[in-house]
Amino acid sequence: MQSRTVSELLSQQTTLLEVDIKGWVRTFRANRFIALNDGSTINNIQCVVDFEKFDESVLKRITTGAAVHIKGELVESQGKGQKVEIQVHNIEVLGDSDPETYPIQPKKHSFEFLRENAHLRTRTNTFSAIMRLRSALSFAVHKYFNENGFYYMHAPIITGSDAEGAGEMFKVSSLDPKNTPLTEDGKVDYSKDFFGKETNLTVSGQLEAETYAMSLGKVYTFGPTFRAENSNTSRHLAEFWMIEPEVAFMDLAGNMDLAEDFLKSVITHVLEHNQEDLEFLDQRLLNEEKSKPQAERSDMSLIEKLKFVTENNFKRVSYTEAIDILRSCKPNKKKKFKYIIDEWGTDLQSEHERFLVEKHFKCPVILFDYPANIKAFYMRLNEDGKTVRAMDILFPGIGEIVGGAQREERLDILKERMAAIDIPEEDLWWYLDLRKYGTAVHSGFGLGFERLVMFATGMTNIRDVIPFPRTPHNAEF
Amino acid sequence: MQSRTVSELLSQQTTLLEVDIKGWVRTFRANRFIALNDGSTINNIQCVVDFEKFDESVLKRITTGAAVHIKGELVESQGKGQKVEIQVHNIEVLGDSDPETYPIQPKKHSFEFLRENAHLRTRTNTFSAIMRLRSALSFAVHKYFNENGFYYMHAPIITGSDAEGAGEMFKVSSLDPKNTPLTEDGKVDYSKDFFGKETNLTVSGQLEAETYAMSLGKVYTFGPTFRAENSNTSRHLAEFWMIEPEVAFMDLAGNMDLAEDFLKSVITHVLEHNQEDLEFLDQRLLNEEKSKPQAERSDMSLIEKLKFVTENNFKRVSYTEAIDILRSCKPNKKKKFKYIIDEWGTDLQSEHERFLVEKHFKCPVILFDYPANIKAFYMRLNEDGKTVRAMDILFPGIGEIVGGAQREERLDILKERMAAIDIPEEDLWWYLDLRKYGTAVHSGFGLGFERLVMFATGMTNIRDVIPFPRTPHNAEF
Repeated sequence: MQSRTVSELLSQQTTLLEVDIKGWVRTFRANRFIALNDGSTINNIQCVVDFEKFDESVLKRITTGAAVHIKGELVESQGKGQKVEIQVHNIEVLGDSDPETYPIQPKKHSFEFLRENAHLRTRTNTFSAIMRLRSALSFAVHKYFNENGFYYMHAPIITGSDAEGAGEMFKVSSLDPKNTPLTEDGKVDYSKDFFGKETNLTVSGQLEAETYAMSLGKVYTFGPTFRAENSNTSRHLAEFWMIEPEVAFMDLAGNMDLAEDFLKSVITHVLEHNQEDLEFLDQRLLNEEKSKPQAERSDMSLIEKLKFVTENNFKRVSYTEAIDILRSCKPNKKKKFKYIIDEWGTDLQSEHERFLVEKHFKCPVILFDYPANIKAFYMRLNEDGKTVRAMDILFPGIGEIVGGAQREERLDILKERMAAIDIPEEDLWWYLDLRKYGTAVHSGFGLGFERLVMFATGMTNIRDVIPFPRTPHNAEF
Repeated sequence: MQSRTVSELLSQQTTLLEVDIKGWVRTFRANRFIALNDGSTINNIQCVVDFEKFDESVLKRITTGAAVHIKGELVESQGKGQKVEIQVHNIEVLGDSDPETYPIQPKKHSFEFLRENAHLRTRTNTFSAIMRLRSALSFAVHKYFNENGFYYMHAPIITGSDAEGAGEMFKVSSLDPKNTPLTEDGKVDYSKDFFGKETNLTVSGQLEAETYAMSLGKVYTFGPTFRAENSNTSRHLAEFWMIEPEVAFMDLAGNMDLAEDFLKSVITHVLEHNQEDLEFLDQRLLNEEKSKPQAERSDMSLIEKLKFVTENNFKRVSYTEAIDILRSCKPNKKKKFKYIIDEWGTDLQSEHERFLVEKHFKCPVILFDYPANIKAFYMRLNEDGKTVRAMDILFPGIGEIVGGAQREERLDILKERMAAIDIPEEDLWWYLDLRKYGTAVHSGFGLGFERLVMFATGMTNIRDVIPFPRTPHNAEF
């Protein structure tokens, strides 16, 4: 008889089946009820042991975390909380779990403790739900792009170009750090390094994705990116995954359409496919917020927030309009904002973004046409000479979730903007080539995948939505 | 009128449509026929220009590589080679391409030259076909695992554990290499580095995937992995993508079933979805092989090789049986092999693997139960004490494509094997925890994604199947 998953058994209509199942014990109650989980669903299957028929020495080994192989009969449940349960005929303990030392006890553990045990934390309901959702969101991303004629491209991770300017980079090397070879003028002699030049971990695959968009038309990346910034916050990781679509012949309006459609699609996917995990996390968030003062609780539950995205049109507002709204809004006038808005040209903070979404427009917002000097060099300059065709998408609870732009396709202006921030043309000769040979309007955006997972799970610390977080002074596992 | 893709237009049944399309000029023949491509398919759409109606200054700008916006009428083609073509009413040159300097001319370029222009090489038929196939294979991987109850997990890229022993690693650091801080006893003071310890780029996500398999049941990784090996060959990259499924409660036989089903599924996917690209690459390989001496040509065409995998059962043969076959086979006796097989315990080379697949069994082969001392420490020791439950899958043309194993689930034996090769237990405390708490039989395998793309495209240099290859002394772009 083939083993089945808990998920399969719980959705069985017929009972009185002989079943065979392997999994891990979550709890063993009253020497009689095993709650068994195998990762296939957040739900456990109840396995009922007639303890008089089993050897005491076996029963003692049925502890939280033990791996067991159970044979028995699937029957209608007598108790509440489940439709079916297994009447156990045979139980074999595959792997013991010493209750004295096993870190994951059937009680509430702090997230901090679970981070230190990241190799075991998916044995809890919360983290198994998060990681199933993370997986489902990943698949939804690939599915969306595949169905819409995009090609997946793997941008390089190790890069010799440090001109992207998106942040501090990690150095990649195979030189001996105790014995770094130097040139005659005392610089590091990278010609002796593996790649014969200085190399770093990528901060973005966008520039490379542009090369592919300008031949294959519609492409996207989905891969790891890195920041060597010493930011010990709940919103920053040194290593995170990024999604970056890039489309030839698409302008900023098309970019907004794409991003809105994409976000709605992936969130709809998990609403449809991950209902049980979402309901669990929705309830978890509700319980967590009960301990907070009323003012800090969110207006919407987790699932309400997801539907807020899928059921509303995204409001498109220029940066200039947004500044006008913010300047004259109550929290600005009453100095409730931490950062007071008084001038055009200032960058928006999360508090302003959330105000626009949650209080003013009451829908997701796309801000566009930002001041050039707070955005990247490759964004297309507008005719006004001071704004660029950038866009940020703002979500409730978290603020910015997507940043994108129409790219500067004009060779002369791109060169000027690079010169203004001292990027040598020879560093990006290949990027400039795209503007020399068959240039065209093109656009794309970037989505930090962990931001999306935080939004979809209601988790508030980014370290809790990636399997093994890398942060300052932490690269365990 | 919305722009459409070449692929959409070529599959149109109705003609006499007004159409609007953007793309790049591949060729402009007789001042009349534009072959237009936009990356959506390997095929170009022919756009017929009535040159007398257009200004000479516009016609001169229609050069190979130029981006153009064409409006016209989709009509039945008069010429051979295509069913439909566009009668051009209007043409706008979006981006010029100077024919004097544009690197990608309508002629045969060497692969070496195209590698130096990797940012433009997808503007050729060969590389656009390769990268569309790469994308389709990626999607097929995710689709297969999603449909079969696996969760995608992102294994960490930066890792503090260097105990995996799979090869030389790149160091990741944010220390100043010219001014490396040292401890009192003269070692590098990694406590001052970003992560507070020595960190490297991962060589495999397997060990981390095992932690997830032992809670979520069935998981897989698909991410970049790295080797700092100075191997300047057509089979090695410093940065490549790896797929690693891992399944709890699955033994080696199950692992073979999974790998065979998986490989057949992804190859079937491209046979069904990428027919035109495959036919093009099939023909390309045929032409390339014509220039080779008969003895070096392959017996099968590209598409035949793919069907050889999807249409045959994989033959399962123990390492010991394979050695017996090889020892007594003709090429071994006649010393035609470069490496003569005479002893049990020796590792197999590609020539032996290919002999087994192509000459002896005439089907894909799964070798299993390898000598322990040529395989990794984490593979499950058999009762004979000298072999491990490892498996390699061998394909025609390339030899090994998959390597996998049932993992050692017994704590004491795993510790012994680690001790034997001097891996300190504290380096892998979390990996050992899996054997302490609820251990169980589990298995998985690794597939170098570029190997699969090489197999599916018939390309013989691994640098030609990844967008921007990283190899010794090469990290351009």
